[in-house]
Amino acid sequence: MRLISRWQNSAGERVRIALRLKDLEYTYVPVSSLKADDYRKLNPQELLPALDIGGQIIAQSSAILDYIEETVPEPSLLPSEPIARAQARAFGALVASEMHALTVQRIRRFLQSELKIDDPGVSRWVRHWMTLGFDALEETLEQRAVQWPFCFGDRPGWADLHLIPQISAARRLECDLSRYPLLLAVEQRCVPLDAFRLSRPEAQPDYPDSHNS
Amino acid sequence: MRLISRWQNSAGERVRIALRLKDLEYTYVPVSSLKADDYRKLNPQELLPALDIGGQIIAQSSAILDYIEETVPEPSLLPSEPIARAQARAFGALVASEMHALTVQRIRRFLQSELKIDDPGVSRWVRHWMTLGFDALEETLEQRAVQWPFCFGDRPGWADLHLIPQISAARRLECDLSRYPLLLAVEQRCVPLDAFRLSRPEAQPDYPDSHNS
Repeated sequence: MRLISRWQNSAGERVRIALRLKDLEYTYVPVSSLKADDYRKLNPQELLPALDIGGQIIAQSSAILDYIEETVPEPSLLPSEPIARAQARAFGALVASEMHALTVQRIRRFLQSELKIDDPGVSRWVRHWMTLGFDALEETLEQRAVQWPFCFGDRPGWADLHLIPQISAARRLECDLSRYPLLLAVEQRCVPLDAFRLSRPEAQPDYPDSHNS
Repeated sequence: MRLISRWQNSAGERVRIALRLKDLEYTYVPVSSLKADDYRKLNPQELLPALDIGGQIIAQSSAILDYIEETVPEPSLLPSEPIARAQARAFGALVASEMHALTVQRIRRFLQSELKIDDPGVSRWVRHWMTLGFDALEETLEQRAVQWPFCFGDRPGWADLHLIPQISAARRLECDLSRYPLLLAVEQRCVPLDAFRLSRPEAQPDYPDSHNS
């Protein structure tokens, strides 16, 4: 099982965390080691990450996570009760579709170079979608019937592995997170754990020595 | 089971199709019949659709689809083989996260009113992400080992119910689809089917009589 990713790709970080939470071995393949045309042939979506299972490719982190969960059910990333499972998935989907997808580098670049938005405009864009998203995530945790230590249970899972890389991305983009005590408390519990610590950008083999942020 | 949605909400259309493919009864609740504050209390994400199961709310169409698939497995929306399942999900996730989420009305409005992008600029934005997405979807269908009549099988399912509303949205936004013969062939097979026909915007009770587009 090969995971094609890049050190700072936060969708890839989600999958790295999931693989470690399930104690699954994988080979990390930095996309920089492949030719762009070769990667496009493997994955017409071109985005990262992709999971390569003996030459068969799965794109999109959410599809990879479901594949991992279905083929290696234990330990589960999701609550066992159907509605709670769905709510954990909805938490993850908000991060992936309404926060990450709107604020990743390719989007910021398009705003800048194609639509000629200046830096303060791009920052406004990023903060708007981040704030809308984090507000909803914090409120979702407030509304939980049980105030678990992690988002949806006593162990970290689907929602947490979406949240932690997104908090890191928000910090890199200088978003104010002080209004989110519940989200930050979950983060504090996750960061020391091996599955999260070893999945961070700076722990990846393609992390550049010269990178200072 | 209540589905809170709006006639032209294409994420809601996906769920409507899924419910009909599984022959499940549901009550359609137009969001316009609720107060905005009441809806925000029900669903902190505020987006549409939401599934209300006896007062418990599931947000995000992908989480709703998984809930439906898990609680009513037959007829399945997904292929049975794990990698094919994942590829069908990746097809859907590309539509939801990289096409729909980037081009929906709230995004176009923010570009216009907050970032002062003119109409040709907004059109460029929409067409850029639509084209990237449809190019990848068409290539994904070309690469299939078997050229099924529907995206990933002999019956319509997960990928198809994402594709059809997105094609309609692209037409409303005047995107050129002539380069996508495989996608359009799938559409031709889906549109006459009840599950798709009865889920269309104009078949919903809140579709405005005066709407001409």
